[in-house]
Amino acid sequence: MPRFFLNEEAVNGDIITVRSEDAVHIGRSLRMKPGERITFCRQGMDYESVIEKITSDEVICRVESCTASESEAALNLTIYQALPKGDKAELIVQKCTELGASGITFFISSRCVSRPDGKSGEKKTARLQKIAEEAAKQSGRGKIPEIRGIMSFEEAVNELCKNEIPLICYENGGDKLSGISFDHCRSCGVMIGAEGGFDRAEAEEAQSSGATAIWLGKRILRCETCPIAVTAVIMNLSGNF
Amino acid sequence: MPRFFLNEEAVNGDIITVRSEDAVHIGRSLRMKPGERITFCRQGMDYESVIEKITSDEVICRVESCTASESEAALNLTIYQALPKGDKAELIVQKCTELGASGITFFISSRCVSRPDGKSGEKKTARLQKIAEEAAKQSGRGKIPEIRGIMSFEEAVNELCKNEIPLICYENGGDKLSGISFDHCRSCGVMIGAEGGFDRAEAEEAQSSGATAIWLGKRILRCETCPIAVTAVIMNLSGNF
Repeated sequence: MPRFFLNEEAVNGDIITVRSEDAVHIGRSLRMKPGERITFCRQGMDYESVIEKITSDEVICRVESCTASESEAALNLTIYQALPKGDKAELIVQKCTELGASGITFFISSRCVSRPDGKSGEKKTARLQKIAEEAAKQSGRGKIPEIRGIMSFEEAVNELCKNEIPLICYENGGDKLSGISFDHCRSCGVMIGAEGGFDRAEAEEAQSSGATAIWLGKRILRCETCPIAVTAVIMNLSGNF
Repeated sequence: MPRFFLNEEAVNGDIITVRSEDAVHIGRSLRMKPGERITFCRQGMDYESVIEKITSDEVICRVESCTASESEAALNLTIYQALPKGDKAELIVQKCTELGASGITFFISSRCVSRPDGKSGEKKTARLQKIAEEAAKQSGRGKIPEIRGIMSFEEAVNELCKNEIPLICYENGGDKLSGISFDHCRSCGVMIGAEGGFDRAEAEEAQSSGATAIWLGKRILRCETCPIAVTAVIMNLSGNF
């Protein structure tokens, strides 16, 4: 069954009104007809719906049932990623979305080479949000991960430590990921460096703010490999894979 | 300390003779001098060595000690990957090498779109072997994963089932990866489909040959995401991450 993500305004009681791109997609590309069924997703809920009416610019549907999305992980996992060079952020967002991350927040650390200014940072974040949306649709996610950024290291540490389990990947040593218990954990954040990782002062600041350092072993992972591997492993350890 | 991979012929007793590209790299690019130390890697062993002599086309080193590489996983994990479209094979080889896979074997399944003939298949395999070598160097691996292919589905199943634990990722259902015990396991093989996964007959053939079907949950992973995630999770479950 086709799946579409909804924004807040689209739902009114048991009526869903689809406009713009998605309406065109339903009516013209998919050539769907009244009576056919569509799943709409919003914030981790799936709305099973039937098409009532299709006009040139709107599709009106009636909700038949609404259930929590089965494809959403019970754990909210947010990746806090120091902005890498080139198009690595795109790969990170696409893969972490498929693997079930709830959000990906970008920040600037002392070793970041890429340091976009406010305007181009906003543009980059908007593009990454679009990639998250596409990956969420393609992988059957129940919600679109929120892409945030580009914040300072201090802001990112502050956000990280609001999670029940805050972790920082540190190549100079730390606990093994398999030693962390995710039982009954609702939220986990993992902070990951850009090329060259974190400097000592940053690792200490995160730890003194409450984060646990974790160490991924002797093989050196590229900075874009680390968040993908960590998301897969944590989804597995928390029973969400 | 710089790391180089050796072939069989380079070692004679405690003398290592480096020729061609690597010799140029040591002498001219790194400007190393006699007395300086280099680590050579061969088949999971690290040779700690001292440069004795540098000529225009050779570097002669003396081995001081030889130990099993600490960065190599105790588990030999081979990925059997149905050949995907475009440059996805390159991403799979690079990431699975960083994450510690021992080998990546490509094969053709019924849903493969990309079906290179013998000549272009060999060329592709050679290019992928080069990518594995670069990723092995960069990530500090003790050996270069072997890239094989491009074999038939039947050959791949046959090879897969020589592993102590043979697995096939099947989107229509199977065991959870976290339910598999990797205790004392020396070799594991995982078979993964291309775009569209495996057809039922293939999944049945692999299982009747001895492979266990595993299921990675309700989120649909792109075919290049699956081997990366599986390698990360198995390295974690087997204590090698």
